[in-house]
Amino acid sequence: MNEAALIRAIALWSASTPGGDLVEGIGDDCAILRPRRNEDLLLTTDLVVEDVHFRRDTHPPAAIGWKCLARGISDIAAMGGEPRFALFSLVLPHWFGTAQLRGFYRGARELAGGLDVRIIGGDVTRGGKLVCDVVVIGSVPRGRALRRSGAKAGDGIYVSGPLGAAAASNWKTKAQPRIGLGVELRRRHRASACMDLSDGLSTDLPRMMLASGVAAELRSGSIPLAKGASLEQALHGGEDYELLFTLPPTARRDPESGFTLIGFVLDGPPGRVRLDGETLKPGGWDPFRRR
Amino acid sequence: MNEAALIRAIALWSASTPGGDLVEGIGDDCAILRPRRNEDLLLTTDLVVEDVHFRRDTHPPAAIGWKCLARGISDIAAMGGEPRFALFSLVLPHWFGTAQLRGFYRGARELAGGLDVRIIGGDVTRGGKLVCDVVVIGSVPRGRALRRSGAKAGDGIYVSGPLGAAAASNWKTKAQPRIGLGVELRRRHRASACMDLSDGLSTDLPRMMLASGVAAELRSGSIPLAKGASLEQALHGGEDYELLFTLPPTARRDPESGFTLIGFVLDGPPGRVRLDGETLKPGGWDPFRRR
Repeated sequence: MNEAALIRAIALWSASTPGGDLVEGIGDDCAILRPRRNEDLLLTTDLVVEDVHFRRDTHPPAAIGWKCLARGISDIAAMGGEPRFALFSLVLPHWFGTAQLRGFYRGARELAGGLDVRIIGGDVTRGGKLVCDVVVIGSVPRGRALRRSGAKAGDGIYVSGPLGAAAASNWKTKAQPRIGLGVELRRRHRASACMDLSDGLSTDLPRMMLASGVAAELRSGSIPLAKGASLEQALHGGEDYELLFTLPPTARRDPESGFTLIGFVLDGPPGRVRLDGETLKPGGWDPFRRR
Repeated sequence: MNEAALIRAIALWSASTPGGDLVEGIGDDCAILRPRRNEDLLLTTDLVVEDVHFRRDTHPPAAIGWKCLARGISDIAAMGGEPRFALFSLVLPHWFGTAQLRGFYRGARELAGGLDVRIIGGDVTRGGKLVCDVVVIGSVPRGRALRRSGAKAGDGIYVSGPLGAAAASNWKTKAQPRIGLGVELRRRHRASACMDLSDGLSTDLPRMMLASGVAAELRSGSIPLAKGASLEQALHGGEDYELLFTLPPTARRDPESGFTLIGFVLDGPPGRVRLDGETLKPGGWDPFRRR
Protein backbone atom coordinates (compact mmCIF):
# COMPACT_ATOMS: atom_id res chain seq x y z
CA MET A 1 0.00 0.00 0.00
CA ASN A 2 1.46 3.41 -0.89
CA GLU A 3 1.00 6.55 1.19
CA ALA A 4 -2.06 7.79 -0.72
CA ALA A 5 -3.82 4.42 -0.38
CA LEU A 6 -2.90 4.26 3.30
CA ILE A 7 -4.33 7.73 3.95
CA ARG A 8 -7.54 6.77 2.14
CA ALA A 9 -7.82 3.65 4.34
CA ILE A 10 -7.18 5.70 7.49
CA ALA A 11 -9.81 8.25 6.45
CA LEU A 12 -12.26 5.35 6.06
CA TRP A 13 -11.38 3.81 9.44
CA SER A 14 -11.54 7.22 11.09
CA ALA A 15 -15.07 7.64 9.73
CA SER A 16 -15.15 11.40 10.18
CA THR A 17 -17.17 13.50 7.79
CA PRO A 18 -17.20 17.30 7.79
CA GLY A 19 -20.19 19.05 9.31
CA GLY A 20 -20.98 21.41 12.19
CA ASP A 21 -17.77 23.02 13.40
CA LEU A 22 -15.60 20.66 11.32
CA VAL A 23 -15.21 22.29 7.90
CA GLU A 24 -12.61 19.83 6.59
CA GLY A 25 -11.15 16.64 8.07
CA ILE A 26 -8.63 14.31 6.47
CA GLY A 27 -7.66 15.03 2.84
CA ASP A 28 -6.27 18.55 2.45
CA ASP A 29 -3.08 20.25 3.66
CA CYS A 30 -4.76 21.05 7.01
CA ALA A 31 -7.95 20.23 8.87
CA ILE A 32 -10.26 23.25 9.21
CA LEU A 33 -12.21 24.01 12.39
CA ARG A 34 -14.78 26.75 12.86
CA PRO A 35 -14.76 27.72 16.55
CA ARG A 36 -18.11 28.20 18.23
CA ARG A 37 -19.12 31.38 20.04
CA ASN A 38 -17.72 31.86 23.51
CA GLU A 39 -15.60 28.76 23.60
CA ASP A 40 -11.99 28.33 24.61
CA LEU A 41 -10.13 25.49 22.89
CA LEU A 42 -7.98 23.08 24.87
CA LEU A 43 -5.05 21.41 23.12
CA THR A 44 -2.99 18.51 24.36
CA THR A 45 -0.60 16.08 22.74
CA ASP A 46 0.67 12.76 24.11
CA LEU A 47 3.34 10.39 22.88
CA VAL A 48 3.05 6.62 23.21
CA VAL A 49 6.21 4.72 22.24
CA GLU A 50 6.79 0.99 21.74
CA ASP A 51 8.95 -0.51 24.49
CA VAL A 52 8.57 2.67 26.57
CA HIS A 53 4.81 2.85 27.15
CA PHE A 54 3.74 -0.59 25.90
CA ARG A 55 5.10 -3.84 24.52
CA ARG A 56 3.79 -5.48 21.37
CA ASP A 57 3.54 -8.89 23.04
CA THR A 58 1.26 -7.63 25.82
CA HIS A 59 -0.78 -4.92 24.05
CA PRO A 60 -2.90 -5.77 21.00
CA PRO A 61 -3.31 -2.95 18.44
CA ALA A 62 -6.83 -2.03 19.59
CA ALA A 63 -5.57 -1.61 23.16
CA ILE A 64 -2.79 0.68 21.92
CA GLY A 65 -5.29 2.77 19.93
CA TRP A 66 -7.56 3.13 22.96
CA LYS A 67 -4.66 3.96 25.27
CA CYS A 68 -3.19 6.62 22.96
CA LEU A 69 -6.47 8.47 22.71
CA ALA A 70 -7.44 7.99 26.37
CA ARG A 71 -4.34 9.86 27.56
CA GLY A 72 -5.25 13.02 25.68
CA ILE A 73 -8.94 12.81 26.51
CA SER A 74 -8.04 12.54 30.18
CA ASP A 75 -6.10 15.84 29.88
CA ILE A 76 -9.25 17.47 28.50
CA ALA A 77 -11.28 16.00 31.40
CA ALA A 78 -8.74 17.46 33.83
CA MET A 79 -9.65 20.96 32.65
CA GLY A 80 -13.40 20.39 32.75
CA GLY A 81 -13.63 20.33 28.97
CA GLU A 82 -15.41 18.20 26.42
CA PRO A 83 -13.17 16.40 23.90
CA ARG A 84 -14.12 17.18 20.31
CA PHE A 85 -11.38 16.30 17.82
CA ALA A 86 -8.24 14.19 17.55
CA LEU A 87 -5.26 13.95 15.17
CA PHE A 88 -3.07 10.84 15.04
CA SER A 89 0.58 10.88 13.98
CA LEU A 90 1.95 7.38 13.57
CA VAL A 91 5.45 6.02 12.93
CA LEU A 92 4.83 2.51 11.62
CA PRO A 93 7.39 -0.30 11.94
CA HIS A 94 7.33 -3.32 9.64
CA TRP A 95 5.47 -5.53 12.14
CA PHE A 96 2.57 -3.07 12.19
CA GLY A 97 0.80 -3.79 8.90
CA THR A 98 -2.64 -3.03 7.55
CA ALA A 99 -4.41 -5.48 9.88
CA GLN A 100 -2.71 -3.99 12.94
CA LEU A 101 -3.48 -0.46 11.80
CA ARG A 102 -7.13 -1.31 11.31
CA GLY A 103 -7.18 -2.79 14.83
CA PHE A 104 -5.53 0.33 16.20
CA TYR A 105 -8.21 2.60 14.71
CA ARG A 106 -10.96 0.22 15.87
CA GLY A 107 -9.70 0.63 19.45
CA ALA A 108 -9.44 4.40 19.10
CA ARG A 109 -12.91 4.68 17.58
CA GLU A 110 -14.45 2.53 20.27
CA LEU A 111 -13.43 5.24 22.73
CA ALA A 112 -13.94 8.22 20.38
CA GLY A 113 -17.39 7.19 19.19
CA GLY A 114 -18.78 6.92 22.71
CA LEU A 115 -17.62 10.46 23.43
CA ASP A 116 -18.42 12.08 20.07
CA VAL A 117 -14.74 12.78 19.36
CA ARG A 118 -13.91 13.05 15.66
CA ILE A 119 -10.59 11.95 14.16
CA ILE A 120 -9.76 14.78 11.76
CA GLY A 121 -6.18 14.27 10.62
CA GLY A 122 -2.61 13.38 11.41
CA ASP A 123 0.47 12.09 9.66
CA VAL A 124 1.95 8.68 8.95
CA THR A 125 5.45 7.48 8.09
CA ARG A 126 7.80 4.53 8.47
CA GLY A 127 10.23 3.81 11.30
CA GLY A 128 11.79 1.12 13.46
CA LYS A 129 9.43 1.26 16.45
CA LEU A 130 5.75 2.17 16.73
CA VAL A 131 5.36 5.79 17.88
CA CYS A 132 1.93 7.39 18.26
CA ASP A 133 1.51 11.07 18.94
CA VAL A 134 -2.11 11.95 19.54
CA VAL A 135 -3.44 15.49 19.65
CA VAL A 136 -6.80 16.00 21.32
CA ILE A 137 -8.75 19.24 21.05
CA GLY A 138 -11.43 20.02 23.58
CA SER A 139 -13.91 22.78 24.19
CA VAL A 140 -14.79 24.64 27.37
CA PRO A 141 -16.91 27.76 27.94
CA ARG A 142 -14.76 30.86 27.69
CA GLY A 143 -12.63 31.48 30.77
CA ARG A 144 -13.93 28.43 32.63
CA ALA A 145 -11.17 25.85 32.19
CA LEU A 146 -10.10 24.19 35.44
CA ARG A 147 -6.42 24.84 36.14
CA ARG A 148 -3.70 23.29 38.25
CA SER A 149 -2.86 26.60 39.78
CA GLY A 150 -5.94 27.51 41.79
CA ALA A 151 -5.54 25.45 45.00
CA LYS A 152 -5.63 27.53 48.20
CA ALA A 153 -4.68 26.84 51.82
CA GLY A 154 -7.67 25.29 53.54
CA ASP A 155 -9.01 23.50 50.44
CA GLY A 156 -9.62 19.77 50.67
CA ILE A 157 -7.69 17.47 48.30
CA TYR A 158 -9.78 14.79 46.58
CA VAL A 159 -9.45 11.94 44.14
CA SER A 160 -12.26 10.68 41.95
CA GLY A 161 -11.78 6.95 42.59
CA PRO A 162 -9.51 4.22 43.89
CA LEU A 163 -5.85 4.38 42.89
CA GLY A 164 -3.25 1.80 41.87
CA ALA A 165 -5.45 -0.28 39.56
CA ALA A 166 -3.15 0.16 36.55
CA ALA A 167 0.00 -0.78 38.49
CA ALA A 168 -1.74 -3.75 40.16
CA SER A 169 -2.72 -5.11 36.73
CA ASN A 170 0.75 -4.47 35.25
CA TRP A 171 -0.67 -1.53 33.26
CA LYS A 172 -3.15 -3.58 31.28
CA THR A 173 -6.27 -1.69 32.41
CA LYS A 174 -8.39 0.13 29.86
CA ALA A 175 -8.36 3.75 31.01
CA GLN A 176 -11.77 5.43 31.26
CA PRO A 177 -11.19 9.19 31.13
CA ARG A 178 -13.42 11.02 33.62
CA ILE A 179 -15.06 13.46 31.21
CA GLY A 180 -18.45 13.67 32.91
CA LEU A 181 -16.87 14.24 36.28
CA GLY A 182 -14.55 16.96 34.96
CA VAL A 183 -17.54 18.84 33.55
CA GLU A 184 -19.38 18.50 36.89
CA LEU A 185 -16.33 19.71 38.82
CA ARG A 186 -16.33 22.81 36.65
CA ARG A 187 -20.06 23.48 36.49
CA ARG A 188 -21.37 22.39 39.83
CA HIS A 189 -18.60 21.95 42.35
CA ARG A 190 -16.47 24.92 41.26
CA ALA A 191 -13.24 23.00 41.93
CA SER A 192 -10.37 25.37 42.75
CA ALA A 193 -7.78 23.18 40.94
CA CYS A 194 -7.84 19.97 38.91
CA MET A 195 -5.49 17.67 36.98
CA ASP A 196 -5.49 14.04 35.89
CA LEU A 197 -3.47 11.32 37.61
CA SER A 198 -1.39 10.11 34.70
CA ASP A 199 2.03 9.78 36.32
CA GLY A 200 1.08 8.82 39.90
CA LEU A 201 -0.16 10.77 42.94
CA SER A 202 3.35 11.25 44.38
CA THR A 203 4.48 12.91 41.12
CA ASP A 204 1.30 14.74 40.12
CA LEU A 205 0.22 16.26 43.46
CA PRO A 206 3.56 18.12 43.95
CA ARG A 207 3.11 19.54 40.41
CA MET A 208 -0.31 20.89 41.34
CA MET A 209 0.92 22.30 44.65
CA LEU A 210 3.91 23.92 42.93
CA ALA A 211 1.67 25.49 40.26
CA SER A 212 -0.62 26.79 43.03
CA GLY A 213 2.22 28.01 45.28
CA VAL A 214 1.09 25.92 48.26
CA ALA A 215 1.89 22.71 50.16
CA ALA A 216 -0.16 19.60 50.99
CA GLU A 217 -0.64 17.15 53.81
CA LEU A 218 -2.01 13.68 53.01
CA ARG A 219 -3.23 10.90 55.29
CA SER A 220 -2.29 7.46 54.04
CA GLY A 221 -5.34 5.90 55.67
CA SER A 222 -7.59 8.07 53.49
CA ILE A 223 -6.10 7.09 50.13
CA PRO A 224 -8.57 4.76 48.39
CA LEU A 225 -6.86 1.60 47.13
CA ALA A 226 -8.00 -0.22 44.00
CA LYS A 227 -8.72 -3.92 44.39
CA GLY A 228 -5.42 -5.77 44.77
CA ALA A 229 -3.35 -2.56 44.89
CA SER A 230 -0.84 -1.71 47.59
CA LEU A 231 -0.39 1.79 49.05
CA GLU A 232 2.90 1.99 47.10
CA GLN A 233 1.05 1.28 43.85
CA ALA A 234 -1.66 3.83 44.71
CA LEU A 235 0.98 6.49 45.42
CA HIS A 236 3.44 5.84 42.61
CA GLY A 237 1.76 3.60 40.05
CA GLY A 238 0.49 6.08 37.47
CA GLU A 239 -1.90 5.64 34.52
CA ASP A 240 -4.98 5.55 36.74
CA TYR A 241 -6.51 8.54 34.93
CA GLU A 242 -8.62 9.45 37.93
CA LEU A 243 -8.94 13.17 38.61
CA LEU A 244 -7.07 14.89 41.41
CA PHE A 245 -8.75 18.11 42.53
CA THR A 246 -9.23 20.59 45.31
CA LEU A 247 -12.49 21.99 46.64
CA PRO A 248 -12.93 25.02 48.88
CA PRO A 249 -14.16 24.24 52.42
CA THR A 250 -17.61 25.61 51.51
CA ALA A 251 -18.04 23.27 48.50
CA ARG A 252 -21.23 21.24 48.42
CA ARG A 253 -20.39 17.58 48.31
CA ASP A 254 -22.99 14.85 47.97
CA PRO A 255 -22.39 11.64 49.91
CA GLU A 256 -22.94 9.73 46.66
CA SER A 257 -20.36 11.73 44.69
CA GLY A 258 -17.74 8.99 45.03
CA PHE A 259 -15.05 11.59 45.75
CA THR A 260 -12.56 10.71 48.46
CA LEU A 261 -10.97 13.37 50.66
CA ILE A 262 -7.30 12.42 50.97
CA GLY A 263 -5.78 15.52 52.58
CA PHE A 264 -5.61 19.30 52.81
CA VAL A 265 -3.86 22.23 51.20
CA LEU A 266 -1.61 24.25 53.54
CA ASP A 267 0.53 27.34 53.39
CA GLY A 268 4.09 26.08 53.03
CA PRO A 269 6.97 25.59 50.61
CA PRO A 270 5.36 25.48 47.14
CA GLY A 271 5.18 21.90 45.91
CA ARG A 272 5.96 20.21 49.22
CA VAL A 273 3.73 17.20 49.94
CA ARG A 274 3.80 15.33 53.24
CA LEU A 275 2.24 11.95 53.90
CA ASP A 276 1.45 11.31 57.57
CA GLY A 277 3.93 14.06 58.43
CA GLU A 278 6.84 12.75 56.31
CA THR A 279 7.94 14.27 52.99
CA LEU A 280 6.53 12.28 50.06
CA LYS A 281 9.14 11.84 47.33
CA PRO A 282 7.93 11.68 43.71
CA GLY A 283 8.09 8.03 42.72
CA GLY A 284 5.73 8.04 39.76
CA TRP A 285 6.43 7.55 36.10
CA ASP A 286 9.24 9.66 34.65
CA PRO A 287 10.85 8.43 31.44
CA PHE A 288 13.94 10.55 32.19
CA ARG A 289 14.69 9.19 35.64
CA ARG A 290 16.47 5.90 36.24
CA ARG A 291 14.36 3.79 38.58
CA MET B 1 17.60 16.08 34.20
CA ASN B 2 14.19 14.67 35.18
CA GLU B 3 10.99 15.26 33.22
CA ALA B 4 9.87 18.28 35.26
CA ALA B 5 13.26 19.99 34.87
CA LEU B 6 13.28 19.18 31.17
CA ILE B 7 9.82 20.70 30.69
CA ARG B 8 10.90 23.85 32.56
CA ALA B 9 13.94 24.13 30.26
CA ILE B 10 11.77 23.62 27.17
CA ALA B 11 9.32 26.27 28.39
CA LEU B 12 12.27 28.65 28.76
CA TRP B 13 13.68 27.85 25.31
CA SER B 14 10.22 28.13 23.78
CA ALA B 15 9.89 31.62 25.27
CA SER B 16 6.13 31.79 24.94
CA THR B 17 4.15 33.75 27.47
CA PRO B 18 0.34 33.86 27.60
CA GLY B 19 -1.39 36.92 26.23
CA GLY B 20 -3.83 37.87 23.47
CA ASP B 21 -5.54 34.72 22.22
CA LEU B 22 -3.15 32.44 24.13
CA VAL B 23 -4.68 31.96 27.59
CA GLU B 24 -2.22 29.28 28.73
CA GLY B 25 0.88 27.82 27.10
CA ILE B 26 3.22 25.19 28.55
CA GLY B 27 2.59 24.12 32.15
CA ASP B 28 -0.93 22.78 32.63
CA ASP B 29 -2.73 19.66 31.35
CA CYS B 30 -3.61 21.46 28.10
CA ALA B 31 -2.80 24.71 26.31
CA ILE B 32 -5.78 27.09 26.15
CA LEU B 33 -6.61 29.16 23.07
CA ARG B 34 -9.31 31.80 22.77
CA PRO B 35 -10.40 31.91 19.12
CA ARG B 36 -10.87 35.33 17.57
CA ARG B 37 -14.08 36.46 15.91
CA ASN B 38 -14.73 35.18 12.41
CA GLU B 39 -11.67 33.01 12.13
CA ASP B 40 -11.34 29.43 11.01
CA LEU B 41 -8.49 27.47 12.55
CA LEU B 42 -6.17 25.34 10.42
CA LEU B 43 -4.51 22.32 12.02
CA THR B 44 -1.69 20.25 10.62
CA THR B 45 0.74 17.75 12.08
CA ASP B 46 4.00 16.48 10.55
CA LEU B 47 6.36 13.73 11.61
CA VAL B 48 10.12 13.96 11.16
CA VAL B 49 11.97 10.74 11.95
CA GLU B 50 15.71 10.07 12.31
CA ASP B 51 17.09 7.99 9.43
CA VAL B 52 13.84 8.48 7.48
CA HIS B 53 13.70 12.28 7.04
CA PHE B 54 17.20 13.23 8.21
CA ARG B 55 20.50 11.76 9.42
CA ARG B 56 22.25 12.94 12.54
CA ASP B 57 25.61 13.18 10.77
CA THR B 58 24.31 15.57 8.11
CA HIS B 59 21.69 17.59 10.04
CA PRO B 60 22.71 19.59 13.14
CA PRO B 61 19.97 19.97 15.81
CA ALA B 62 19.09 23.55 14.82
CA ALA B 63 18.51 22.43 11.21
CA ILE B 64 16.21 19.64 12.44
CA GLY B 65 14.24 22.11 14.58
CA TRP B 66 13.82 24.49 11.65
CA LYS B 67 12.85 21.67 9.26
CA CYS B 68 10.25 20.19 11.62
CA LEU B 69 8.47 23.49 12.04
CA ALA B 70 8.85 24.56 8.41
CA ARG B 71 6.87 21.54 7.17
CA GLY B 72 3.79 22.45 9.19
CA ILE B 73 4.06 26.16 8.48
CA SER B 74 4.18 25.37 4.77
CA ASP B 75 0.86 23.49 5.11
CA ILE B 76 -0.67 26.63 6.65
CA ALA B 77 0.74 28.72 3.77
CA ALA B 78 -0.84 26.29 1.31
CA MET B 79 -4.29 27.22 2.64
CA GLY B 80 -3.64 30.96 2.64
CA GLY B 81 -3.47 31.06 6.44
CA GLU B 82 -1.21 32.71 8.95
CA PRO B 83 0.63 30.37 11.33
CA ARG B 84 0.01 31.22 14.99
CA PHE B 85 0.90 28.37 17.35
CA ALA B 86 2.97 25.17 17.46
CA LEU B 87 3.22 22.13 19.72
CA PHE B 88 6.30 19.88 19.68
CA SER B 89 6.21 16.19 20.62
CA LEU B 90 9.71 14.75 20.85
CA VAL B 91 11.01 11.20 21.33
CA LEU B 92 14.58 11.71 22.53
CA PRO B 93 17.32 9.10 22.04
CA HIS B 94 20.43 9.04 24.22
CA TRP B 95 22.58 10.93 21.71
CA PHE B 96 20.17 13.87 21.85
CA GLY B 97 21.07 15.51 25.17
CA THR B 98 20.41 18.93 26.66
CA ALA B 99 22.82 20.73 24.31
CA GLN B 100 21.19 19.17 21.24
CA LEU B 101 17.71 19.96 22.53
CA ARG B 102 18.65 23.58 23.12
CA GLY B 103 20.01 23.73 19.56
CA PHE B 104 16.81 22.18 18.23
CA TYR B 105 14.64 24.85 19.89
CA ARG B 106 17.05 27.59 18.75
CA GLY B 107 16.48 26.46 15.15
CA ALA B 108 12.71 26.25 15.61
CA ARG B 109 12.55 29.68 17.26
CA GLU B 110 14.65 31.25 14.54
CA LEU B 111 11.82 30.38 12.14
CA ALA B 112 8.94 30.86 14.62
CA GLY B 113 10.07 34.25 15.88
CA GLY B 114 10.25 35.75 12.40
CA LEU B 115 6.66 34.68 11.76
CA ASP B 116 5.18 35.40 15.20
CA VAL B 117 4.43 31.71 15.81
CA ARG B 118 4.27 30.78 19.49
CA ILE B 119 5.37 27.37 20.84
CA ILE B 120 2.61 26.51 23.31
CA GLY B 121 3.08 22.90 24.33
CA GLY B 122 3.88 19.34 23.37
CA ASP B 123 5.16 16.18 24.97
CA VAL B 124 8.56 14.60 25.52
CA THR B 125 9.72 11.06 26.22
CA ARG B 126 12.62 8.67 25.66
CA GLY B 127 13.18 6.33 22.73
CA GLY B 128 15.78 4.79 20.43
CA LYS B 129 15.58 7.27 17.51
CA LEU B 130 14.73 10.95 17.38
CA VAL B 131 11.08 11.46 16.38
CA CYS B 132 9.54 14.93 16.18
CA ASP B 133 5.84 15.43 15.64
CA VAL B 134 5.02 19.09 15.19
CA VAL B 135 1.51 20.49 15.24
CA VAL B 136 0.99 23.90 13.69
CA ILE B 137 -2.20 25.90 14.14
CA GLY B 138 -3.01 28.68 11.73
CA SER B 139 -5.73 31.23 11.28
CA VAL B 140 -7.69 32.26 8.20
CA PRO B 141 -10.78 34.45 7.81
CA ARG B 142 -13.92 32.35 8.09
CA GLY B 143 -14.68 30.32 4.98
CA ARG B 144 -11.66 31.65 3.05
CA ALA B 145 -9.13 28.81 3.32
CA LEU B 146 -7.60 27.83 -0.02
CA ARG B 147 -8.33 24.19 -0.83
CA ARG B 148 -6.91 21.51 -3.09
CA SER B 149 -10.29 20.78 -4.54
CA GLY B 150 -11.22 23.93 -6.43
CA ALA B 151 -9.25 23.60 -9.69
CA LYS B 152 -11.41 23.84 -12.83
CA ALA B 153 -10.87 23.01 -16.49
CA GLY B 154 -9.31 26.02 -18.18
CA ASP B 155 -7.42 27.23 -15.10
CA GLY B 156 -3.69 27.77 -15.43
CA ILE B 157 -1.35 25.74 -13.20
CA TYR B 158 1.41 27.72 -11.51
CA VAL B 159 4.35 27.24 -9.17
CA SER B 160 5.74 29.96 -6.93
CA GLY B 161 9.42 29.43 -7.72
CA PRO B 162 12.07 27.16 -9.17
CA LEU B 163 11.88 23.46 -8.29
CA GLY B 164 14.43 20.78 -7.45
CA ALA B 165 16.63 22.88 -5.13
CA ALA B 166 16.25 20.49 -2.18
CA ALA B 167 17.05 17.40 -4.25
CA ALA B 168 19.99 19.13 -5.97
CA SER B 169 21.50 19.96 -2.55
CA ASN B 170 20.84 16.46 -1.17
CA TRP B 171 18.00 17.85 0.96
CA LYS B 172 20.14 20.24 2.96
CA THR B 173 18.29 23.43 1.99
CA LYS B 174 16.59 25.50 4.66
CA ALA B 175 12.94 25.57 3.65
CA GLN B 176 11.31 29.01 3.55
CA PRO B 177 7.56 28.50 3.80
CA ARG B 178 5.69 30.85 1.45
CA ILE B 179 3.36 32.45 4.00
CA GLY B 180 3.15 35.90 2.42
CA LEU B 181 2.44 34.43 -0.99
CA GLY B 182 -0.27 32.11 0.37
CA VAL B 183 -2.04 35.10 1.92
CA GLU B 184 -1.77 37.04 -1.37
CA LEU B 185 -3.11 34.08 -3.37
CA ARG B 186 -6.15 34.05 -1.09
CA ARG B 187 -6.74 37.81 -0.79
CA ARG B 188 -5.73 39.20 -4.11
CA HIS B 189 -5.42 36.51 -6.75
CA ARG B 190 -8.38 34.39 -5.62
CA ALA B 191 -6.55 31.17 -6.45
CA SER B 192 -9.01 28.37 -7.29
CA ALA B 193 -6.81 25.66 -5.64
CA CYS B 194 -3.54 25.61 -3.72
CA MET B 195 -1.22 23.14 -1.94
CA ASP B 196 2.44 23.05 -0.98
CA LEU B 197 5.05 21.04 -2.86
CA SER B 198 6.34 18.84 -0.06
CA ASP B 199 6.54 15.46 -1.81
CA GLY B 200 7.39 16.55 -5.37
CA LEU B 201 5.38 17.90 -8.31
CA SER B 202 4.78 14.46 -9.85
CA THR B 203 3.20 13.24 -6.58
CA ASP B 204 1.48 16.43 -5.41
CA LEU B 205 -0.13 17.63 -8.66
CA PRO B 206 -2.07 14.35 -9.20
CA ARG B 207 -3.38 14.71 -5.61
CA MET B 208 -4.68 18.20 -6.37
CA MET B 209 -6.21 17.09 -9.67
CA LEU B 210 -7.84 14.08 -8.00
CA ALA B 211 -9.27 16.25 -5.21
CA SER B 212 -10.62 18.65 -7.85
CA GLY B 213 -11.98 15.92 -10.15
CA VAL B 214 -9.96 17.12 -13.16
CA ALA B 215 -6.82 16.31 -15.21
CA ALA B 216 -3.72 18.32 -16.07
CA GLU B 217 -1.34 18.87 -18.96
CA LEU B 218 2.18 20.13 -18.23
CA ARG B 219 4.89 21.38 -20.56
CA SER B 220 8.36 20.34 -19.46
CA GLY B 221 9.92 23.41 -21.05
CA SER B 222 7.87 25.63 -18.71
CA ILE B 223 8.93 24.02 -15.43
CA PRO B 224 11.37 26.38 -13.69
CA LEU B 225 14.52 24.58 -12.60
CA ALA B 226 16.47 25.56 -9.49
CA LYS B 227 20.16 26.24 -9.96
CA GLY B 228 21.93 22.92 -10.53
CA ALA B 229 18.69 20.92 -10.59
CA SER B 230 17.70 18.52 -13.37
CA LEU B 231 14.15 18.17 -14.72
CA GLU B 232 13.96 14.82 -12.87
CA GLN B 233 14.80 16.56 -9.59
CA ALA B 234 12.28 19.33 -10.27
CA LEU B 235 9.55 16.76 -11.00
CA HIS B 236 10.23 14.21 -8.28
CA GLY B 237 12.58 15.78 -5.72
CA GLY B 238 10.23 17.00 -3.02
CA GLU B 239 10.82 19.27 -0.02
CA ASP B 240 10.89 22.42 -2.14
CA TYR B 241 7.99 23.94 -0.19
CA GLU B 242 7.02 26.16 -3.07
CA LEU B 243 3.29 26.58 -3.62
CA LEU B 244 1.44 24.82 -6.41
CA PHE B 245 -1.78 26.61 -7.38
CA THR B 246 -4.33 27.22 -10.05
CA LEU B 247 -5.71 30.55 -11.24
CA PRO B 248 -8.79 31.11 -13.36
CA PRO B 249 -8.11 32.45 -16.88
CA THR B 250 -9.37 35.86 -15.81
CA ALA B 251 -6.93 36.20 -12.90
CA ARG B 252 -4.83 39.32 -12.78
CA ARG B 253 -1.18 38.42 -12.83
CA ASP B 254 1.59 40.94 -12.49
CA PRO B 255 4.71 40.34 -14.54
CA GLU B 256 6.74 40.76 -11.34
CA SER B 257 4.76 38.16 -9.37
CA GLY B 258 7.43 35.50 -9.89
CA PHE B 259 4.74 32.89 -10.63
CA THR B 260 5.49 30.49 -13.43
CA LEU B 261 2.74 29.02 -15.60
CA ILE B 262 3.60 25.33 -16.05
CA GLY B 263 0.43 23.93 -17.61
CA PHE B 264 -3.36 23.84 -17.72
CA VAL B 265 -6.27 22.07 -16.06
CA LEU B 266 -8.40 19.95 -18.41
CA ASP B 267 -11.53 17.88 -18.24
CA GLY B 268 -10.34 14.28 -18.04
CA PRO B 269 -9.83 11.30 -15.73
CA PRO B 270 -9.55 12.79 -12.22
CA GLY B 271 -5.94 12.89 -11.10
CA ARG B 272 -4.36 12.19 -14.48
CA VAL B 273 -1.34 14.37 -15.24
CA ARG B 274 0.42 14.38 -18.61
CA LEU B 275 3.79 15.89 -19.32
CA ASP B 276 4.33 16.80 -22.98
CA GLY B 277 1.50 14.38 -23.82
CA GLU B 278 2.85 11.39 -21.84
CA THR B 279 1.41 10.20 -18.51
CA LEU B 280 3.50 11.48 -15.60
CA LYS B 281 4.00 8.78 -12.98
CA PRO B 282 4.29 9.87 -9.33
CA GLY B 283 7.97 9.60 -8.45
CA GLY B 284 8.10 11.87 -5.41
CA TRP B 285 8.71 11.04 -1.79
CA ASP B 286 6.57 8.24 -0.37
CA PRO B 287 7.88 6.49 2.75
CA PHE B 288 5.70 3.47 1.96
CA ARG B 289 6.95 2.84 -1.55
CA ARG B 290 10.18 1.04 -2.36
CA ARG B 291 12.24 3.19 -4.70
